[in-house]
Amino acid sequence: MPTDSAALAKEAMIRCETLARFSEDTGSTRRTFLSPPMRECHREISAWLNSLGIPVKLDGAGNLRASCPGRDENAGRLLIGSHLDTVPNAGKYDGVLGVVLAVALLAALEGENLPIGIDVVGFSEEEGVRFGVPFIGSRALVGQLDDELLNRQDTRGVSVREAIRNFGLNDAIISEASLGDDVFGYLEFHIEQGPILESIGRPLGVVEAIAGQSRLELTFVGSANHAGTTPMHLRRDALVAAAEWIVGVERAAHTVSNMVATVGSIDAKPGAANVIAGEVKVTLDVRHAANELREKVVANLLREAEEIATKRGLTVKCNLQLNQRTVAMDPFLAGQIEEAMRKAGCEPHRMVSGAGHDAMILAEKIPAAMIFLRTPGGISHHPSEAVLIEDVAKAIECGLHLIKQIAGAAVSQTRRSRV
Amino acid sequence: MPTDSAALAKEAMIRCETLARFSEDTGSTRRTFLSPPMRECHREISAWLNSLGIPVKLDGAGNLRASCPGRDENAGRLLIGSHLDTVPNAGKYDGVLGVVLAVALLAALEGENLPIGIDVVGFSEEEGVRFGVPFIGSRALVGQLDDELLNRQDTRGVSVREAIRNFGLNDAIISEASLGDDVFGYLEFHIEQGPILESIGRPLGVVEAIAGQSRLELTFVGSANHAGTTPMHLRRDALVAAAEWIVGVERAAHTVSNMVATVGSIDAKPGAANVIAGEVKVTLDVRHAANELREKVVANLLREAEEIATKRGLTVKCNLQLNQRTVAMDPFLAGQIEEAMRKAGCEPHRMVSGAGHDAMILAEKIPAAMIFLRTPGGISHHPSEAVLIEDVAKAIECGLHLIKQIAGAAVSQTRRSRV
Repeated sequence: MPTDSAALAKEAMIRCETLARFSEDTGSTRRTFLSPPMRECHREISAWLNSLGIPVKLDGAGNLRASCPGRDENAGRLLIGSHLDTVPNAGKYDGVLGVVLAVALLAALEGENLPIGIDVVGFSEEEGVRFGVPFIGSRALVGQLDDELLNRQDTRGVSVREAIRNFGLNDAIISEASLGDDVFGYLEFHIEQGPILESIGRPLGVVEAIAGQSRLELTFVGSANHAGTTPMHLRRDALVAAAEWIVGVERAAHTVSNMVATVGSIDAKPGAANVIAGEVKVTLDVRHAANELREKVVANLLREAEEIATKRGLTVKCNLQLNQRTVAMDPFLAGQIEEAMRKAGCEPHRMVSGAGHDAMILAEKIPAAMIFLRTPGGISHHPSEAVLIEDVAKAIECGLHLIKQIAGAAVSQTRRSRV
Repeated sequence: MPTDSAALAKEAMIRCETLARFSEDTGSTRRTFLSPPMRECHREISAWLNSLGIPVKLDGAGNLRASCPGRDENAGRLLIGSHLDTVPNAGKYDGVLGVVLAVALLAALEGENLPIGIDVVGFSEEEGVRFGVPFIGSRALVGQLDDELLNRQDTRGVSVREAIRNFGLNDAIISEASLGDDVFGYLEFHIEQGPILESIGRPLGVVEAIAGQSRLELTFVGSANHAGTTPMHLRRDALVAAAEWIVGVERAAHTVSNMVATVGSIDAKPGAANVIAGEVKVTLDVRHAANELREKVVANLLREAEEIATKRGLTVKCNLQLNQRTVAMDPFLAGQIEEAMRKAGCEPHRMVSGAGHDAMILAEKIPAAMIFLRTPGGISHHPSEAVLIEDVAKAIECGLHLIKQIAGAAVSQTRRSRV
């Protein structure tokens, strides 16, 4: 490949660092939906694209949109991007890297005169920080940014709609943010945010699905009593019951390949050292690519909680908060990604994303695909979040092969449809 | 027994209800060290004692003190009492009942012309609510109310010494609160605050020791990570480690007869449903009458915590906060109590108190003994704390037999020492 991927990777790394400086907080990165630093972020990325002769606009949901037309109008357009918002105390790469790489690919393809068009998107919101609901940006592209969501308020009482207006945008044209019929696919580069690629020594991964997720809250109710005067056999200790169950959650997850199950939050009441806990609230988060398997494991864990509670003279209440089905990535695009990775000298690794991504939302309307980049230490949502420059170079090489493959396939498809 | 113990018990119940109305809070009972309602409480009890012709004074530590002389100066004096302070949202009997019963016994003994004197004490502080340190009242009687404790401040910056002065007392005469050489024993009636007597169907218990206690805080340190992207085998989950250990704590306590071990407080960080816990703090409270056994179990539990942490790639830190040895009650007095209980028609039950009491402090200087009253449901430190009127009657009968036995023994002792 003639492109100097190393130079482009170096530039991409610098660009991620530049964008990390646009922050609501001093000393750390925090850039939520349509916050003031988002404007600087848009300005910076627009400058990069304009220098390639590509105009940039913001849609009604605050997404940055750019379009590089192909030579064959009928060959359609490929959308590439990720999100530009961040969590508080964020790293430099989550989301941002996917947009920076889209620009790098357009730079590398300058003068290639591809048959397909390439669109770039920088989503305004994915993390759910400001309004407690994620994917505001990508929802606009699939026509899901409804009134309920637009009227939702942040902690200062500002609604999504008002935030859009305050930023100088026109909420009346949100529907124009929808994907055009000629967009045939979505591609997203993203850091893995987990330790799998690092643990197997691979720079890139092909996402074949975004795992379904169950979220529950369980409350074990026993009886608070004096820790000194209540003999062991007369206790109804809600914390020991919860502890026994938490150990069981881990055991259950270990029995199913690639399942993850987590109790991340626990609250014991009254919570004093010398008082037996009378009530303990815990959360449960279970994820797996196979919905039925996930639902079966959750049902088993609930039954186990009941058994533990009954055995100990307690009760347990359960509140299902989320039951989100697995979203498959497009098999054709995933196959193309594997081929492109091999051309770039990377042995591909197929994997399921345990975290949600914009690609999950886009997949409702168009074929979507994701490429994961190895994340050192699996660390994300933290200033020490990192990515290796050589992995970024591989991602650029893979992306260029992929776009050319897809362009070729799109032309064949167009020819066939003309016949 | 000619005394109408039923009538005295009825009066005692009413008196406990009267005292519960003297509160810092409206609608619930809270009467901390030398708070304004403590003055009303003193006034009420003084009226009861004065009506028996017994004068009342407050010592320099705010303890209510009364003395009923015996006919034989050399026979010595028996001290009977408990504490008058309460926890917030308290019941009506914890502490207060012991003072009310002391007054009831003096009323029943009026005109008996006993050889021994009987002193009554209503301790100013036992619960440790106001200054975070318990037993301020009883410490004064054994000469342990030192400058460090007197300078200790409450949350409003008022020291113990200032609280004493603000109540109109003279802190310069605190040393005069010390027990006189002629006080040969201390007797305390107290509700059990636990479910043991109820579970075996006995109204009264003989306390043979106040259990030693270990208090520790453990911190399991692992690694906080994304709950969706971190596979089970690459986790260092501090909450599962803590849960495994908590189950082990319960198991360990069950292996030793009469041991209690409690994890009452747990704090998991960062504490989000979708983040693996990186750090978990738990408390440990272990109590048993045998100090070596208690210390051995604590050492085993710490070793187990280390093993669990090591196995899971975590570390664990431990902070020993309290290692308080068991305090034995006086065997002679305990034997006398058993005899008195049988005379009152109650089969005595020997037991270890899991909670601390003023008797523990007094035992450092003089023979001390406790009689527990059955506590319905084992409920204490709560408005629904209760005691059965028939058990109170039994306690009065037992107390009268006991005082007469002790008086007889004291006279024999005096005669022997004269020979």
